[in-house]
Amino acid sequence: MSGYFDHIEKIKYEGPESSNALAFKYYDPKKVVLGKTIEEHLRVASCYWHNFCWDGHDIFGAGTFGRPWLKGAMDQTAATQKLDAAFDFFDRLGQPFFCFHDTDVMAAAETPREHVENFAAIVDQIEAKMDAGSTQLLWGTANLFSHPRYMAGGATNPNPDVTAFAALQVKHCLEATHRLGGSGYVLWGGREGYDTILNTRVGHEMEQLGRFMNMVVEHKHKIGFKGDIWIEPKPHEPTKHQYDRDVGTVYGFLKQYGLENEVGVNIEPNHATLAGNSFEHEIEMANAFGIFGSIDFNRGDPQNGWDTDQFPNDLRETTLALYYILKGGGFKKGGSNFDAKVRRQSSDAEDLFHGHIGGMDLLARGLINAAEMIEKDTLEDFKSARYAGWGEGLGKQMLSGNLSLTEMADAALNQNISPAVRSGKQEMLENYITNAVK
Amino acid sequence: MSGYFDHIEKIKYEGPESSNALAFKYYDPKKVVLGKTIEEHLRVASCYWHNFCWDGHDIFGAGTFGRPWLKGAMDQTAATQKLDAAFDFFDRLGQPFFCFHDTDVMAAAETPREHVENFAAIVDQIEAKMDAGSTQLLWGTANLFSHPRYMAGGATNPNPDVTAFAALQVKHCLEATHRLGGSGYVLWGGREGYDTILNTRVGHEMEQLGRFMNMVVEHKHKIGFKGDIWIEPKPHEPTKHQYDRDVGTVYGFLKQYGLENEVGVNIEPNHATLAGNSFEHEIEMANAFGIFGSIDFNRGDPQNGWDTDQFPNDLRETTLALYYILKGGGFKKGGSNFDAKVRRQSSDAEDLFHGHIGGMDLLARGLINAAEMIEKDTLEDFKSARYAGWGEGLGKQMLSGNLSLTEMADAALNQNISPAVRSGKQEMLENYITNAVK
Amino acid sequence: MSGYFDHIEKIKYEGPESSNALAFKYYDPKKVVLGKTIEEHLRVASCYWHNFCWDGHDIFGAGTFGRPWLKGAMDQTAATQKLDAAFDFFDRLGQPFFCFHDTDVMAAAETPREHVENFAAIVDQIEAKMDAGSTQLLWGTANLFSHPRYMAGGATNPNPDVTAFAALQVKHCLEATHRLGGSGYVLWGGREGYDTILNTRVGHEMEQLGRFMNMVVEHKHKIGFKGDIWIEPKPHEPTKHQYDRDVGTVYGFLKQYGLENEVGVNIEPNHATLAGNSFEHEIEMANAFGIFGSIDFNRGDPQNGWDTDQFPNDLRETTLALYYILKGGGFKKGGSNFDAKVRRQSSDAEDLFHGHIGGMDLLARGLINAAEMIEKDTLEDFKSARYAGWGEGLGKQMLSGNLSLTEMADAALNQNISPAVRSGKQEMLENYITNAVK
Amino acid sequence: MSGYFDHIEKIKYEGPESSNALAFKYYDPKKVVLGKTIEEHLRVASCYWHNFCWDGHDIFGAGTFGRPWLKGAMDQTAATQKLDAAFDFFDRLGQPFFCFHDTDVMAAAETPREHVENFAAIVDQIEAKMDAGSTQLLWGTANLFSHPRYMAGGATNPNPDVTAFAALQVKHCLEATHRLGGSGYVLWGGREGYDTILNTRVGHEMEQLGRFMNMVVEHKHKIGFKGDIWIEPKPHEPTKHQYDRDVGTVYGFLKQYGLENEVGVNIEPNHATLAGNSFEHEIEMANAFGIFGSIDFNRGDPQNGWDTDQFPNDLRETTLALYYILKGGGFKKGGSNFDAKVRRQSSDAEDLFHGHIGGMDLLARGLINAAEMIEKDTLEDFKSARYAGWGEGLGKQMLSGNLSLTEMADAALNQNISPAVRSGKQEMLENYITNAVK
Ligand SMILES: [Co+2]
Ligand SMILES: [Co+2]
Ligand SMILES: [Co+2]
Ligand SMILES: [Co+2]
Ligand SMILES: [Co+2]
Ligand SMILES: [Co+2]
Ligand SMILES: [Co+2]
Ligand SMILES: [Co+2]
Repeated sequence: MSGYFDHIEKIKYEGPESSNALAFKYYDPKKVVLGKTIEEHLRVASCYWHNFCWDGHDIFGAGTFGRPWLKGAMDQTAATQKLDAAFDFFDRLGQPFFCFHDTDVMAAAETPREHVENFAAIVDQIEAKMDAGSTQLLWGTANLFSHPRYMAGGATNPNPDVTAFAALQVKHCLEATHRLGGSGYVLWGGREGYDTILNTRVGHEMEQLGRFMNMVVEHKHKIGFKGDIWIEPKPHEPTKHQYDRDVGTVYGFLKQYGLENEVGVNIEPNHATLAGNSFEHEIEMANAFGIFGSIDFNRGDPQNGWDTDQFPNDLRETTLALYYILKGGGFKKGGSNFDAKVRRQSSDAEDLFHGHIGGMDLLARGLINAAEMIEKDTLEDFKSARYAGWGEGLGKQMLSGNLSLTEMADAALNQNISPAVRSGKQEMLENYITNAVK
Repeated sequence: MSGYFDHIEKIKYEGPESSNALAFKYYDPKKVVLGKTIEEHLRVASCYWHNFCWDGHDIFGAGTFGRPWLKGAMDQTAATQKLDAAFDFFDRLGQPFFCFHDTDVMAAAETPREHVENFAAIVDQIEAKMDAGSTQLLWGTANLFSHPRYMAGGATNPNPDVTAFAALQVKHCLEATHRLGGSGYVLWGGREGYDTILNTRVGHEMEQLGRFMNMVVEHKHKIGFKGDIWIEPKPHEPTKHQYDRDVGTVYGFLKQYGLENEVGVNIEPNHATLAGNSFEHEIEMANAFGIFGSIDFNRGDPQNGWDTDQFPNDLRETTLALYYILKGGGFKKGGSNFDAKVRRQSSDAEDLFHGHIGGMDLLARGLINAAEMIEKDTLEDFKSARYAGWGEGLGKQMLSGNLSLTEMADAALNQNISPAVRSGKQEMLENYITNAVK
Repeated sequence: MSGYFDHIEKIKYEGPESSNALAFKYYDPKKVVLGKTIEEHLRVASCYWHNFCWDGHDIFGAGTFGRPWLKGAMDQTAATQKLDAAFDFFDRLGQPFFCFHDTDVMAAAETPREHVENFAAIVDQIEAKMDAGSTQLLWGTANLFSHPRYMAGGATNPNPDVTAFAALQVKHCLEATHRLGGSGYVLWGGREGYDTILNTRVGHEMEQLGRFMNMVVEHKHKIGFKGDIWIEPKPHEPTKHQYDRDVGTVYGFLKQYGLENEVGVNIEPNHATLAGNSFEHEIEMANAFGIFGSIDFNRGDPQNGWDTDQFPNDLRETTLALYYILKGGGFKKGGSNFDAKVRRQSSDAEDLFHGHIGGMDLLARGLINAAEMIEKDTLEDFKSARYAGWGEGLGKQMLSGNLSLTEMADAALNQNISPAVRSGKQEMLENYITNAVK
Repeated sequence: MSGYFDHIEKIKYEGPESSNALAFKYYDPKKVVLGKTIEEHLRVASCYWHNFCWDGHDIFGAGTFGRPWLKGAMDQTAATQKLDAAFDFFDRLGQPFFCFHDTDVMAAAETPREHVENFAAIVDQIEAKMDAGSTQLLWGTANLFSHPRYMAGGATNPNPDVTAFAALQVKHCLEATHRLGGSGYVLWGGREGYDTILNTRVGHEMEQLGRFMNMVVEHKHKIGFKGDIWIEPKPHEPTKHQYDRDVGTVYGFLKQYGLENEVGVNIEPNHATLAGNSFEHEIEMANAFGIFGSIDFNRGDPQNGWDTDQFPNDLRETTLALYYILKGGGFKKGGSNFDAKVRRQSSDAEDLFHGHIGGMDLLARGLINAAEMIEKDTLEDFKSARYAGWGEGLGKQMLSGNLSLTEMADAALNQNISPAVRSGKQEMLENYITNAVK
């Protein structure tokens, strides 16, 4: 017990009619939907970084939270105090999973040796905490962007010594993730991109990254890690441009370096919108490419152009996202990590609970909606009829590869094909969704 | 002679000191730069659509230009009148190239038969015009987005009959491009995407497009067309989302369908910025992937979120673009097409000349700047030093594939690698560019 | 009866459980909420322009709808046919209100004389239709942006002759609105702005507009029109920049020309977001300035940067909007006009109904949610506590004007004021909203 | 001498042909343009905050610069060391002006008493530095956004105690600015806005701000400060929304609280573009409203949606900005402050010089271009002709207020006014600008 959350009772499910702001209204973990419990479907995780490593500072001002463990230097004692607070929080929330960066959890380190030692020390403690509680590791990742050495990237740094340090971090973090039973391992670009193209060899840097990723995949197999490896797309910020811009771009990169069967994506809604895509678009693209992995649930601010990482609260978007995830087979190794932070003005310890309760209720409510949409799948039926022509005749022949351009053109000419317009029924389908979102 | 431009003298080069708004100040076609004439380097083209098919209407108002050939129905007589105006314009401007869509040039058609006949009729006339003048075809393309039948896409339509009509148009337009000596053939998505993902099978549609593109490539080889085939990336508009979002996304698509050695990209600055990328980024990405093809020069409005297709006027951007193009080997089959339109308020015939003169002067001035930047290549020298570490030791080993993650991590640990920060010198390089832009 | 909608039954309220896509599920017009019927609260209107004047063309393609009355020239016969269709539609929908531009309803005119005559002719017919049915006029407006003469603006045109034509249209349209019993009259900028600042005197043009608006207000009083006058803010499109950018800018303009007590705002969500504001922000700003008037309900596409004018479907946003509208006193002369169009692919006559049914159900559902939020007003209570300090002591003194900077500064110094942070409880409040949206 | 810049020689003007990256190529301070020296025209300033208070951290990573004075706590010794470095820098650059926030220059303080004492202590030292050198104060400002107490705003805080602390800071900073001979005093919103509208009374907060601003103006007059007071518009960041969104919004606010003759604007290009306006638009609006004050020169990144505050490098934009500034009468009390920071990767001491040299050269080059544009004022001539109609007949009558809507409408009708379109010549004017930018 860290003491920090002592005034907060364990969060319970009380149902939609409850007026208790510190209770779940929809997240009933054992409720069964489409043959699995809500907990099994969603695999919800809290993140270490936003909740326990950030004290409310932003680029214009100092921290506002006053978390006790962040008051001084991040030495071993502070790291342990932070760990106590984190698992105390997970426990009171009943959170099934958590996620972390190596540098989130450990005492600060400068040299390679310190890094290895300090990280190892805390991994032992994490293991003990996990054994004592019921929160598991969803995924781990190495932070290759906060230390000044990474200012020009990790794997894509112009200086291979920096990449060597990155290799050190990734190796140890991947091994720790394996040891702690993590389901996946994430690579987020962070600074794998450029601040100005004037000083950058983009082709060279992508080649660096391609080789680096292959080294990670080889190491995963060597150590027998059965979890998945995911890239988290983001178009920019803090950099001007990141190479892993969005799902489509990541797929191209994976194909280029022969990684499309080894690496998937961890999709974040706020990154999707920063890249000019909707959240559901990114999910459907990942489904189409066969690289769907996990989700970093959050939301951006539609009027602000940076990664606000707010807790999600859009039930329509969440319902659609879960519909597409379920249609793609649901979460396997992946899950629903809240890569979300309470606002800088939300300075009460309790606010961390409000953020998570709102998010978890939203996911549960969206899941229930999505399940109903699947049980009688109006969208699927509509699309089946709309694309029916491709299952027969010219369409089928074309897709099978047995038709030349001339043959198809001649068919149009000889059959005097003059297709009439057929309504796409967008408003009717949108109304269907609106009514399905309850 | 169409009569429409009779009050405009043939545009001449008069040099930077000229105060004649209807003269070139920098575009001196025969001036030699880096061993080739400006004309040979730039391969400038005018487009048919914005100049001769658009009468100044926008979504909120009617046409303002009153072009005589657009007053009534687009029958054969009007199409011929339009052709006269177009080649009269090309001639007075001394334009080396032009580009067109099939439906730009032909009399309106409804049925497949009419399409084939009306298109064939005008191609004969185009050929005659080309023989009589000195303007060549840079590239052709089929319009698969304006007719109502294409409201849900051409190759990606849910109805294969529409795709058959698209095949007819592409086959005939590709063959005409071949016959007219075009250097390339462009496929612009137009409506190859979706208005709502609710009624769309994105994976299925991409598969349709992949097969269609392969049919086009097969046909190109069958008829012996030696020109290039290019996709023109655009993220959205008129659709909510297009599959050919940007260069990175197109590369992924090409790899997925085995087209990366057959198809390149035609990059448009306004599409680049709509997708959240800089123009030079898209060029460098195309260079890195080996798929650079051609440019649709124009500019967007940084405060407006749609494809304004304005004539370019940013000398810094143009200089950088041409620097990167030259560094990538310069234009081969591709060229500098102005996919640009004068503003709706620019209702004088003469304004078409102002637009092109400004654009051509800008390209020439940018080319001269870029050539100077290459002769003493400060950027290249800076980057060579910045990435030097990758040509030796750990870096070289890693790129060669002969290094495992463990070996690299252990090197960091054992050599106690703690890389110091090294300035990226962004402001110094930016000043260098500012001073090189003259 | 126009014949066009004969296959559509009159739309009835069937309740949330109905699976009839052509029935209302929440819009029960006579249901009483907070002491008034839903119909009285919402004052829902259909617009003439998107539904009856637009045939589905966009900037890249031709019309897809094939509305019979739009097939040929817009002569008197076609205008009458359009009117029949419009009122047939209003009737089947049971729509209490409609809105129109002068040029929407009338036969096309070129000269001032034709304009006056053609408009007068159709106003007689509209009056007859209104007498025969139950749809009233919410507001009218003059179209000062579609005809080529307005390409550089109406009231802000560099040519005062154009402004004279604008005066003619506004005078006759305002008088017709008065005669038809309209509740308001709207002025939407359209092209009151610039395409390039290079040829524009912004100060001069704003002065033109200021005087023009005063002339309109004077005329309103002269003819005894008791309705309101509203400006509809929009930041740009079709222009690069419009002077009536957003509510804050409009307020400055009104103050500058002494119009703040005479003119209010007609807020459109899609215009709000194009200007970088949220919909609820614009409502609250209008409430704060005392200039709230009416709403043009619709939505934009968060990934596209132009005015998509889609039917609204975001229940959270709609609930909040109606909460703030109710808190501001609810609609008085204004109402809920759908400035929304079905998508270009929604080519069935029936799709017009889907759009409106979805919108009306959404408003009704949002209204019911908002009413519940007001009955036990958690947001208000929270804010009362948060701002309580301003009702006493230093805060009260400062607001009353009886405190100098020095006195306030000295108070801080002498009382050693060191205010602690107090959580803004954003996530808790967001959860409250999420749960209130049902 | 701080020692930190000892390896940098005093920066000299060497002319455009110089290849010395650490010399001015265009900024020749004593060169006379339009009757004044470049130095007198531009009144260039460096800012304290980005150069001396920021160590290169961003929201994703730690500082990279390692400035010696930022290594430990910001006590009096560190503040003095920082001051030494700042004036050493100003001196080597030959910078005529600087700008500061109170908290930039002083030792850290918590209580009101500490604030007053620590600020007073450093103001004495600043005065001594200014006496010893040749750098003057352009403007001062109080930082009401970095300390946690200001997380919900200064003047607009829900807690009046916070506003009292703000009053204390502003009073002392305004008095210090007066004492140090500053030309102006700036109020930048910072957090004068909201993070969520859910917990905010926007009308109440604007009233707080209106009264606060009036208190500041009253105090200015009381102490006899002859400098100007300026608001710096910014739409958002770090907040979701700021009340001082852009020039138009600020003007409305000033009118509302009777401040339009007392307060002007300090325009920042990066804030202009974040608000969806061009830089030149904001200048022209300020000119039109008569509230132009000063400029915070910098640039944003067109692909990134936050305040990147980069050094400006766009010669076209800068030329146009200076053209409009000169047309408005040039800088009076205001000047050209670089509210710009070198990139996080620009970690060399020397990079601070590259940033400023590039900026100052750009301004000088733009000024020379702008002066030439004014000497033969093609834009003005074009506009005079374009608006000529408003100087006579109907136009003149309307502007004079002697025309009713009916009279103007009747004139149109009786004179059968059917104005023809007249080209706006946008491309011709753009070419003129392109050629004027050298
Ligand atoms: Co994330
Ligand atoms: Co994020
Ligand atoms: Co375009
Ligand atoms: Co193009
Ligand atoms: Co509207
Ligand atoms: Co709109
Ligand atoms: Co600033
Ligand atoms: Co800024």
